[in-house]
Amino acid sequence: MSQYENLSKSELEAMYDELKTEYNSYKAKNLCLDMSRGKPNPMQLSLSDDMLKVVISKEDYIGEKGVDYRNYGVLDGIDASKKLFAAILEVEPSEVIVGNNSSLNMMYDTVMRCLLFGAGEGKTPWLKQGKIKFLCPTPGYDRHFAICEHFGIEMIIIPMDENGPDMDLVKEYAENDESVKGIWCVPKYSNPTGITYSDEVVKAFADLNPKADDFRIFWDNAYVVHHLYEDGDELLNLKDLLKEKNKEDMIFIFGSTSKITHSGSGIAAFASSKSNIDFMKKLLSIQTIGSDKLNQLRHTKFLTCYEEILDHMKKHADIIRPRFEKVLEILDNELLPLGISEYTRPKGGYFISFDTIEGCAKRTVSLCKECGVTLTGAGATFPYGKDPFDKNIRIAPTYPPVEELEEAMKIFVIAVKMATIEKLLND
Amino acid sequence: MSQYENLSKSELEAMYDELKTEYNSYKAKNLCLDMSRGKPNPMQLSLSDDMLKVVISKEDYIGEKGVDYRNYGVLDGIDASKKLFAAILEVEPSEVIVGNNSSLNMMYDTVMRCLLFGAGEGKTPWLKQGKIKFLCPTPGYDRHFAICEHFGIEMIIIPMDENGPDMDLVKEYAENDESVKGIWCVPKYSNPTGITYSDEVVKAFADLNPKADDFRIFWDNAYVVHHLYEDGDELLNLKDLLKEKNKEDMIFIFGSTSKITHSGSGIAAFASSKSNIDFMKKLLSIQTIGSDKLNQLRHTKFLTCYEEILDHMKKHADIIRPRFEKVLEILDNELLPLGISEYTRPKGGYFISFDTIEGCAKRTVSLCKECGVTLTGAGATFPYGKDPFDKNIRIAPTYPPVEELEEAMKIFVIAVKMATIEKLLND
Repeated sequence: MSQYENLSKSELEAMYDELKTEYNSYKAKNLCLDMSRGKPNPMQLSLSDDMLKVVISKEDYIGEKGVDYRNYGVLDGIDASKKLFAAILEVEPSEVIVGNNSSLNMMYDTVMRCLLFGAGEGKTPWLKQGKIKFLCPTPGYDRHFAICEHFGIEMIIIPMDENGPDMDLVKEYAENDESVKGIWCVPKYSNPTGITYSDEVVKAFADLNPKADDFRIFWDNAYVVHHLYEDGDELLNLKDLLKEKNKEDMIFIFGSTSKITHSGSGIAAFASSKSNIDFMKKLLSIQTIGSDKLNQLRHTKFLTCYEEILDHMKKHADIIRPRFEKVLEILDNELLPLGISEYTRPKGGYFISFDTIEGCAKRTVSLCKECGVTLTGAGATFPYGKDPFDKNIRIAPTYPPVEELEEAMKIFVIAVKMATIEKLLND
Repeated sequence: MSQYENLSKSELEAMYDELKTEYNSYKAKNLCLDMSRGKPNPMQLSLSDDMLKVVISKEDYIGEKGVDYRNYGVLDGIDASKKLFAAILEVEPSEVIVGNNSSLNMMYDTVMRCLLFGAGEGKTPWLKQGKIKFLCPTPGYDRHFAICEHFGIEMIIIPMDENGPDMDLVKEYAENDESVKGIWCVPKYSNPTGITYSDEVVKAFADLNPKADDFRIFWDNAYVVHHLYEDGDELLNLKDLLKEKNKEDMIFIFGSTSKITHSGSGIAAFASSKSNIDFMKKLLSIQTIGSDKLNQLRHTKFLTCYEEILDHMKKHADIIRPRFEKVLEILDNELLPLGISEYTRPKGGYFISFDTIEGCAKRTVSLCKECGVTLTGAGATFPYGKDPFDKNIRIAPTYPPVEELEEAMKIFVIAVKMATIEKLLND
């Protein structure tokens, strides 16, 4: 029961007028504040600026078996980069393909290959199996959903809670419908809710016996080392659990250094069972002679081991933690007592997921926009960009400077209140 | 009429025994010489080693409209890199998308997009049009043909001569068969013949009126600035000619710095009409947030303008010209007088195309292999790896040191002679 529901119509109207006045005073400032994307801020990027001066010597570029990293070749990435991702993603180096700068690109290519060539050796291409479907834990990452929409893959909403996707529903769909071929997961510090899949949820994934023998879990471990606090979340190793049950082919793992080093110039990786890796390498060998090995080298010279990555991520955390805390502080002060919203308190990742009461997300985002604050579009966290309850908003606190963030959040809070009152007055 | 055909059986046999003795003496050396791929040699790669020490400063990475090149974004590449490729490929910067390190990857993705989404705005996906075909000027680049085979696109051989593809045949197929959707071209210093398409051939391309309105010319201008001599070949600008006829959408142009800077870590580009670029960018935006801008920057800092590229390419030429000349010298001395072979005399590019008499290519390559000299597989320059006349061999002179090249070519010449005599004796 929200505070607002105890108020009379005239009380609400009076309150709305007050908010409107405050809103207009912000509007008059002609602000331009962007909280729309999960981008690192310049201070975070500068943590990796030594990479801009890395000098690569002959000792560096002559690699395994005398291979010259400046030349063509080495389809799956240099040894050191495979080792680094093996540590990050908790797999063997032989189970890793290191790509160029975009894990999104690797995910896109993986879906494309499943569609055209099958999800593994001997599997029928998805395109030859009629209409296919993906399960989409929601709210989720808009770019995952965009890939499905692009390729004409039907999306099924799976609600998320603080433990991860509703696994009863996942099981029901996956085990009874052969046209269900995949599921998108950001298992750690999920985009946008920030939660980490619980042990029970990960075990439920390992217990899945999908109807389709070419069902694949797209395990986008984008925030695997992206803790905000010392006591970070722990995620069970799903690939190991699947391996015990001889179902290792079911998982496609993705990761990147995009939010570790420089977002536009990192290195990305795909990991899976050895047999999936062999299958993908065969297809990849037609597409390219190899990824940028000098950039892989630049990365492994800058971050030589897993421990250095963890240390580096602490510096990121020190920069963005105050931003998350500022957002939560303002929400706690201004909205928590009113009971007109719900939001997450992530211990890592890049987002806070915010729910208004039903039917207020679009209006909130639009009020913010008019006032110079750009948020991720309402609905973006849902398949087809359509939030059936029009309540979820993704807050991305990392990019703006703290003062701007504070100003943006003040406007956000006013917008939420106004949208809520408008809704109550019109109902 | 070859010299060998005037010889009696016993004369041939005697000659063969002599060759065999020489061959065996080479074999005893246990050599390991590789002339299989068109790879730059380490001296060439070292020409760009200043790139391994490029320091990128804040003045560099803050780019157009204040964009931070270290961060996400800029789908089609930084302005300076688009300008550089526009100069190389003779198009406008707005007609360029700069990608990561592999033009092969961009070609693959372009074919994939045509198959799944159509060859341009409003076009029917090729996959929805039944069996489709590509014209393949032959001998040609094995990796082009591999893409067609991979996607199940039927390949039609188009013979090449010193002026380019047989344009009467191209016209006949393209203008009468709607299932003919594309043609692979390496128009300058062609792979492997080294020839440059004549003005007449390029004009014939511009005059084509394909039956399919989604026919596309894949213009892989891989060797556009890769001259061996001061008086390099000139190639007419097909895109300009097509533009005059309002058929600009018909051309997809590709280029890269793979054989300008470091082969594995260059930058690649796609160029086409503005409407094709818009179409491709829309599709690309689902696949990635952008390519590696810092590597683009590294390139444009190292090669700041077209003139610097031309100067840089002269240094490459100085390194590889002696290799081409050594190969031709040995062929001229040892094989020319015999009349048992034909080969090209390229003024640029990476290859010499060599023809034995019919039925001797595979045997020649296998004799070389047994003797420690690896050549590109016989047939590789033909669709499906099958040379109907078994006569073409691609010689790649750039990689081995001159002394090794000399040794490898001496073995090659013996192998050609032996294979020819075997053939004559068995016929």
